[in-house]
Amino acid sequence: MGGDRAPDEIVDGVCRAARSLDCTMLLVGDEAALRAILSRHDAPRNIDVVHAAERVAMGENPVAAVRRGAATSMGKVIDLVRDGSAEAAFSAGNSGAFLALATIRLRPLPGVARAAFATAWPARHGPMLLLDAGANVDCKPEWIEQFAIMGSAYSRAVLGVADPKVGLLSIGEEEGKGNALVDASTPLLARAPIRFIGNVEGGDLLLGGVDVVVCDGFVGNVALKLAEGTGEYMFDALRRATTASLGARIGAMFLRRSLRELRARMDYREYGGAPLLGVRGVCLVGHGRTDARAVESACAAALRAVKQDLVATIGRAIASDPRPEAPA
Amino acid sequence: MGGDRAPDEIVDGVCRAARSLDCTMLLVGDEAALRAILSRHDAPRNIDVVHAAERVAMGENPVAAVRRGAATSMGKVIDLVRDGSAEAAFSAGNSGAFLALATIRLRPLPGVARAAFATAWPARHGPMLLLDAGANVDCKPEWIEQFAIMGSAYSRAVLGVADPKVGLLSIGEEEGKGNALVDASTPLLARAPIRFIGNVEGGDLLLGGVDVVVCDGFVGNVALKLAEGTGEYMFDALRRATTASLGARIGAMFLRRSLRELRARMDYREYGGAPLLGVRGVCLVGHGRTDARAVESACAAALRAVKQDLVATIGRAIASDPRPEAPA
Repeated sequence: MGGDRAPDEIVDGVCRAARSLDCTMLLVGDEAALRAILSRHDAPRNIDVVHAAERVAMGENPVAAVRRGAATSMGKVIDLVRDGSAEAAFSAGNSGAFLALATIRLRPLPGVARAAFATAWPARHGPMLLLDAGANVDCKPEWIEQFAIMGSAYSRAVLGVADPKVGLLSIGEEEGKGNALVDASTPLLARAPIRFIGNVEGGDLLLGGVDVVVCDGFVGNVALKLAEGTGEYMFDALRRATTASLGARIGAMFLRRSLRELRARMDYREYGGAPLLGVRGVCLVGHGRTDARAVESACAAALRAVKQDLVATIGRAIASDPRPEAPA
Repeated sequence: MGGDRAPDEIVDGVCRAARSLDCTMLLVGDEAALRAILSRHDAPRNIDVVHAAERVAMGENPVAAVRRGAATSMGKVIDLVRDGSAEAAFSAGNSGAFLALATIRLRPLPGVARAAFATAWPARHGPMLLLDAGANVDCKPEWIEQFAIMGSAYSRAVLGVADPKVGLLSIGEEEGKGNALVDASTPLLARAPIRFIGNVEGGDLLLGGVDVVVCDGFVGNVALKLAEGTGEYMFDALRRATTASLGARIGAMFLRRSLRELRARMDYREYGGAPLLGVRGVCLVGHGRTDARAVESACAAALRAVKQDLVATIGRAIASDPRPEAPA
């Protein structure tokens, strides 16, 4: 029931996912409304509806959402995972509420100080995973180290990167070029059970050949929204450039397919959902603008995470980290 | 003598600036080398050469550069401003060394806690000034407030924005959505002598209609390099899209001029230099890749800053700020 285009686009995406993926989809929300939409979609049989009378509003305070618990569709989705009735949760709704519900009702994995949102970007060399993308604004170095461990596990299990290279986002490649958090995180990353390649810069996020980049959730969220905004800005400028003259319009006709492919390649929907790493369950949140295509991608990513046993893998990776974790 | 393409492109740019601007240009560096290049350029008469035997290397430690003082071309440029022999300084060299030299040899303006690098971006609505772009990685709220005051003055004097709207870079528009620095900076910005519009997000930097955006130098530098990298990534993808098929190549031929204009619009060289705000002199640094066009733009910006009496304006704005400044 969450996201700008819910429930229609969500239901549409779930129908697509049910057709293409070998799993059962549980649609959680207002049962009558959902069944009405499903009936219009010639829905496949591997979709069940789970009723939840309430919904978390987009701007709702996460504390209020937690208080309402499983009465809301979002709380119910989390509880289905907690109770073993579902193996993964996806929501395109209020991500702050989702974070709070998942953290409180699923609990973090043993030893995990903070769960983090990760986002996959279509970098030049392949998928680049950035985390934290906004769950924790002010971070401790130990959390950054755990983000690196969890991100490596996700990159390997879900994005298919065999031996992910991990970079620390900073403002120069040399050690010592960074802020206090970067300075304190570097030695922890250097001896963590990951392939740490040192500092990377903002320009490396799309161009640098790095597979996982860690930073605090403030910097990560600014970066995510800036990259989206820059893409939108450029497509907008390109649209104006391709309609500026008759010649340009003719050129654009020839280019239509190439430009459409370019746009698709840069599309957030290809990666569908941002995983919340570090909790006891596979959890993904979608962009507020999530449409059917994005839902389908997110469900595919969730299924890969389940099949690769992501949560247990992250649990083992955190447990194998030699450093005794300070209490969160 | 600084930057990847020095001294040829720098000299070329200075020749262009000398022809288009009503001022005298002082070229500082190896006199014989500079005169040899000038002679190939049919140099206009309003260029003088000032000899400096040494040069600051790109990777050189700023402390070492400060120790060498006016023996280097960069140190000499700063001293020319300090001694009143020049009214503005520009360098495309080592920006850390430039910051150190300018801060130590020119000194900050009275009441200014920290000088900051500002960069102008070609946002959808016009020039957007982001600061700090990398001079100070870990910042205090009082510094953020001063960045806003100094950035407003530059936006007005040099970028021609009548009443600049100032935003605080954060991860949500509502107050309280940010990190500890954002929370502590908000009340200071709210009563500073500027037009503060509240929080802006990463996506607003190019799309948001905001004229000045303040943040710490770590976030600002990540953002600057990410925006540059995203632009490069998109042009690269566009180049591949426009050569992917015969049809696409034909289309691209028709579009060549529009695409060239688009590229020019997004070009860092249009704004040429990043001003260092808060020191007792007009100072700009160029991108390492600075070419003749960028040098010309930077010189034009420097001349506008001088004519608008930017330094005194910033000094007055800082002095008018009701808050007694804590010692830096």
